Amino acid sequence: MITSRSACEDLDRSDSLAFARDRFCLPEGVIYLDGNSLGPLPKETAGRLVRTVEQEWGTGLIRSWNSADWINLPRRVGGRIAGLLGADADEVIAADSTSVNLFKLVSATLSSVRRQSTSRRLILSEQGNFPTDLYIAQGVVRATGEQFEIKLVDAGEVEAAITPDVAMAVITHVDYRTGHMHDMAELNAVARRHGVIIAWDLSHSAGAVPVDLGQSGAQLAVGCGYKYFNGGPGAPAYLYVEKSLQQQLESPLAGWFGHAAPFDFAAEYTPAPGIDRFQCGTPSILAMQALEIGLQTFDGVAFADIRRKSLALSDLFWNLMDNHCGEFGFNCIAPRPHERRGSQLSFSHPQAYAIMQALIDRGVIGDFRQPDLLRFGFTPLYLRFADIWDAVMILRDVMLTESWKYGRFKQRNAVT
Amino acid sequence: MITSRSACEDLDRSDSLAFARDRFCLPEGVIYLDGNSLGPLPKETAGRLVRTVEQEWGTGLIRSWNSADWINLPRRVGGRIAGLLGADADEVIAADSTSVNLFKLVSATLSSVRRQSTSRRLILSEQGNFPTDLYIAQGVVRATGEQFEIKLVDAGEVEAAITPDVAMAVITHVDYRTGHMHDMAELNAVARRHGVIIAWDLSHSAGAVPVDLGQSGAQLAVGCGYKYFNGGPGAPAYLYVEKSLQQQLESPLAGWFGHAAPFDFAAEYTPAPGIDRFQCGTPSILAMQALEIGLQTFDGVAFADIRRKSLALSDLFWNLMDNHCGEFGFNCIAPRPHERRGSQLSFSHPQAYAIMQALIDRGVIGDFRQPDLLRFGFTPLYLRFADIWDAVMILRDVMLTESWKYGRFKQRNAVT
Repeated sequence: MITSRSACEDLDRSDSLAFARDRFCLPEGVIYLDGNSLGPLPKETAGRLVRTVEQEWGTGLIRSWNSADWINLPRRVGGRIAGLLGADADEVIAADSTSVNLFKLVSATLSSVRRQSTSRRLILSEQGNFPTDLYIAQGVVRATGEQFEIKLVDAGEVEAAITPDVAMAVITHVDYRTGHMHDMAELNAVARRHGVIIAWDLSHSAGAVPVDLGQSGAQLAVGCGYKYFNGGPGAPAYLYVEKSLQQQLESPLAGWFGHAAPFDFAAEYTPAPGIDRFQCGTPSILAMQALEIGLQTFDGVAFADIRRKSLALSDLFWNLMDNHCGEFGFNCIAPRPHERRGSQLSFSHPQAYAIMQALIDRGVIGDFRQPDLLRFGFTPLYLRFADIWDAVMILRDVMLTESWKYGRFKQRNAVT
Repeated sequence: MITSRSACEDLDRSDSLAFARDRFCLPEGVIYLDGNSLGPLPKETAGRLVRTVEQEWGTGLIRSWNSADWINLPRRVGGRIAGLLGADADEVIAADSTSVNLFKLVSATLSSVRRQSTSRRLILSEQGNFPTDLYIAQGVVRATGEQFEIKLVDAGEVEAAITPDVAMAVITHVDYRTGHMHDMAELNAVARRHGVIIAWDLSHSAGAVPVDLGQSGAQLAVGCGYKYFNGGPGAPAYLYVEKSLQQQLESPLAGWFGHAAPFDFAAEYTPAPGIDRFQCGTPSILAMQALEIGLQTFDGVAFADIRRKSLALSDLFWNLMDNHCGEFGFNCIAPRPHERRGSQLSFSHPQAYAIMQALIDRGVIGDFRQPDLLRFGFTPLYLRFADIWDAVMILRDVMLTESWKYGRFKQRNAVT
């Protein structure tokens, strides 16, 4: 049991990941518990972008598609991501946004199911899934003339709901609100037994918890570049398609970058043989380059170390909240067992919005989530145990001043 | 008739757009006739990006969605583009890629047509349209179960092919190969008479020729940020939806940024009331910021001046080709009449690929297009009349050495 800041400092001194903090620009006076919403700036990003802009674009101009190998950047970045997800390099491509990528996979999978003329009619997902995942599924359903129907169940009922009338499932590995983590291997095994393909959303897990798509038998996944991967605001996303599935899925977003020979300018679309077929339009080279630098912050880091430290940071936060903020009515909604928990904690409180504003004003950046949650993300590459101590003590101090009770903090910032 | 370089220099001295060249970084020894493929680097871009990266992302972190107004960037950039297209600010949004945006508009329009249960079954487009436009149409047709059929006609037959069995048309304003320009107002008028909606692709026209979507009665359009708009490689694209049409079209790519209240995290998708509904996932702020700087290169520039100079540059190039390269077998495939021509010229030649490589090696950057075209784009903001003179003289010199005939220039670069 940690009972002092100096004990936290001891943990920091023996932290095997301490070296990685130096890879980031972190502003003075800020404790950043929101890397699950937007990862912080890597030190190398600005310099690399200037080089891309001035040398590659400015001097190389159009020639840089070849001479600076822009043309392969989505593959190269995809390969890097694959290495962090237990996938093969030719199973992941960096492209578009998470929403667009999910649309590609859901639409392609449903087309494939429809071709097999089965009676599978349901798209299974979770109540409380990240909204854009549900919106995208709804968009596919509308665009394909309501031939499919969305069925939502609670996280704990997903496994039981994988039945032969399910066409596919859209499941988020770690829930953005509760931090609940599914057992990916177990759900994949059940799904395969029933001939159901799961599209995993890794946005709130990849980079913070170990993900092994190959070992766990995953078939499809999408994820985000701007959270734990530190790729910058609105960074390109990625998608994963297991090799054996690539040939049978055709993206409806049949843009020229997904063509087998884009620069032949043929009139007929022929999808590229592999993962490239899930590219669409011309990718943003600046955004893609920034994402590559973000991914390099993981160089030489073992996910076992990340996981160990993530849980240690989270447990410390939770314990300190119990011991130092117990009287203020916070209720942690995260699952207690490590194996069911991602790298974040959310606490409900009736005044959550105002409290989070007060915290942010004091330099402790988490975020508010509807309807009443303070959410804190724990990113082992740059957070120190002493930061956790300080964050909880500042929260205690905020609560003791109680000024938030009197509406001093108006809802001036939409929380994103 | 211009017969000397000094006459070109005279034209440059009296050029009312000469001031704009100073807005760009242009490498020494390069004559850049490929701004229609990738616009050059504006001088302000690198500095602005560093500020966005270091201050907004690095120091502001997640708070910059509000404090740096990232959240409104797609609208702000869209508004700027609208101003260049004769559209209202709330009719254009910057988002995704041209291909993705075209998918949204084609799919949404076909859904709307289908709801009206008409017998309209055809998607009309052009033979030789930019391939990704055809691919996207094919992708929509596949994803919606082959309920529609694509009909391709030659550019000159589009008007006659707008008949009551057409559900919508996908027409490119200026052809990427021939430089042929449609009469937008005339086609829109015919289409409206037949109840047909045209989605215009402005990628090869906007920024180089006057486009007035409002005056010409256009209902839908998409376009590219990285060509004449100088937004950088793979810059975000944009889309336009005429105000009266916005409510009846729902994007199938129903991502959270298109939701009426994205941060309410509601489970049901409710499209935003206006043009915002055509956003999808989280936009790349870095790419969007670079595009905004690119658009600023048009500040204070009148499109009448752009058009006048574009045609003067093109006519000069064509005349010089006739007079100085007439014996080498080039054949210009662009329409001769100004009102049918964009801001580019393409010349067919059996050795086009090798010749273009030789030209690029000498610093004259155009591009090769299948099967046998040398394509040259004329961007009035930074090209000088003397550049045109020099480019043709270098081409003449290349042809006189005839080394390209002997395969010295192998096809080492895929042309993009």
